[in-house]
Amino acid sequence: MADDAQSVADRAVAALWAPDRASQGLGMQIVSVAAGAVSIRMTIREDMTNGHGICHGGFIFTLADSAFAFSCNSAGEATVAASGQIEFLEAVRLGERLTAAGRMLWERGRQGIYAVDVCREDGTLVALFRGRSHKISRPAS
Amino acid sequence: MADDAQSVADRAVAALWAPDRASQGLGMQIVSVAAGAVSIRMTIREDMTNGHGICHGGFIFTLADSAFAFSCNSAGEATVAASGQIEFLEAVRLGERLTAAGRMLWERGRQGIYAVDVCREDGTLVALFRGRSHKISRPAS
Amino acid sequence: MADDAQSVADRAVAALWAPDRASQGLGMQIVSVAAGAVSIRMTIREDMTNGHGICHGGFIFTLADSAFAFSCNSAGEATVAASGQIEFLEAVRLGERLTAAGRMLWERGRQGIYAVDVCREDGTLVALFRGRSHKISRPAS
Amino acid sequence: MADDAQSVADRAVAALWAPDRASQGLGMQIVSVAAGAVSIRMTIREDMTNGHGICHGGFIFTLADSAFAFSCNSAGEATVAASGQIEFLEAVRLGERLTAAGRMLWERGRQGIYAVDVCREDGTLVALFRGRSHKISRPAS
Repeated sequence: MADDAQSVADRAVAALWAPDRASQGLGMQIVSVAAGAVSIRMTIREDMTNGHGICHGGFIFTLADSAFAFSCNSAGEATVAASGQIEFLEAVRLGERLTAAGRMLWERGRQGIYAVDVCREDGTLVALFRGRSHKISRPAS
Repeated sequence: MADDAQSVADRAVAALWAPDRASQGLGMQIVSVAAGAVSIRMTIREDMTNGHGICHGGFIFTLADSAFAFSCNSAGEATVAASGQIEFLEAVRLGERLTAAGRMLWERGRQGIYAVDVCREDGTLVALFRGRSHKISRPAS
Repeated sequence: MADDAQSVADRAVAALWAPDRASQGLGMQIVSVAAGAVSIRMTIREDMTNGHGICHGGFIFTLADSAFAFSCNSAGEATVAASGQIEFLEAVRLGERLTAAGRMLWERGRQGIYAVDVCREDGTLVALFRGRSHKISRPAS
Repeated sequence: MADDAQSVADRAVAALWAPDRASQGLGMQIVSVAAGAVSIRMTIREDMTNGHGICHGGFIFTLADSAFAFSCNSAGEATVAASGQIEFLEAVRLGERLTAAGRMLWERGRQGIYAVDVCREDGTLVALFRGRSHKISRPAS
């Protein structure tokens, strides 16, 4: 069956990924796709380091925000972020590969709440993200 | 007098800016520097757009986070972000030039709270950021 | 003229205050009312103290949330909170009188963002609140 | 053995509960205690309703904040809240019995991050809370 939730998620994520210049430009890769739960990874490059010589928090947020965006768009309806809160737990260094795992916590009508855990390859948590999403339209395809 | 708060801020911001590969790589420019209040601007490039064709929220957060970082480091003590909350108010499009204006709301000992307003050139608010900072060391210079 | 923003705010706040068992039961008093900006005060009672012998953070949030609610309802349209973030800055003790000053930061359509500063009588900040509001209906009167 | 984590948690929660005038005054009851994870319930009373005739969000936050406080103090070291973020998902009505289930998401040194889910008796989520805690002293006993 092509129309189950997994297929819808696969197609929605692929359709959103293709024109996503930002996520691709940062070297992100999709690790896994399920309905409401997409994981993405990214390796910290030199152009992501700040004046303290560690990864700029904005890039950790951006990775989490991408995992959030793909998770909340995985039902195939155009959805945007209304807000995001991030707790920075550990400094992240050049060359580290981070994985951001998004998942839906709650959804009703056009509103949703998602959590994203950002971890190192050894599983250490480096940031916790939570965001509120808002559907802006009916299915695009 | 070289040692007033303005001079300290000018020197601290310059010292943090020089090695900041992330902020420079995104084309950010410092607009103004005062003690506890730094403004930064950035123009949205194609590599900052997402799958909906608008600016990826992560880059709006990153701009705000840079204004936060320079504001909370402007006293010359190494300071990092513990958390950040952003409210996304308006979609931002390719080519728009945003300004993020940081300011200290509160500080005591090693802890601080800062707000950052992100606006278009016409003054329209596009995002509201608030973050908690934590000093990690004594003055570096 | 009875229909300017101040009169609308005065009437809206009075109409919302009358049946507000929670705010009244906690001994809150309205300090000032303006369009989008309502200040409320409350004195910390014994039944607001926690196991550490200081004011339970929930009551500081509740005071801030009331100032937020009256501020975002002051245009006369029924409006509820979608989210709230609070930074606790100082311990608050039994007998202290706090004032929570709400103000609108942004509004568009049914959405709004409000800030609330919570201070002691000497002006010391004890908490910073920010919340997102959502209008649920057209004017009730 | 009296010194395992469960016994420490049982004793720490009992010691913090006894003088907690706020949680007791609101009719809260402890549902379950484990290391880093305490659940508390509360029934919405008339003096918790606001001007819209529904439960004042401050009392939902206060319930969540109590579950957070007991969870983060369950290791027996005095710990306070630095911040809290709540997403209000559903209106809560007079007479409803809510359960707030806290759990540790992360801890290192004096810092911790906790999540609290607030549900109706039928399991419906009504609010999602996340907070940052800070240990203020060494073990009190």
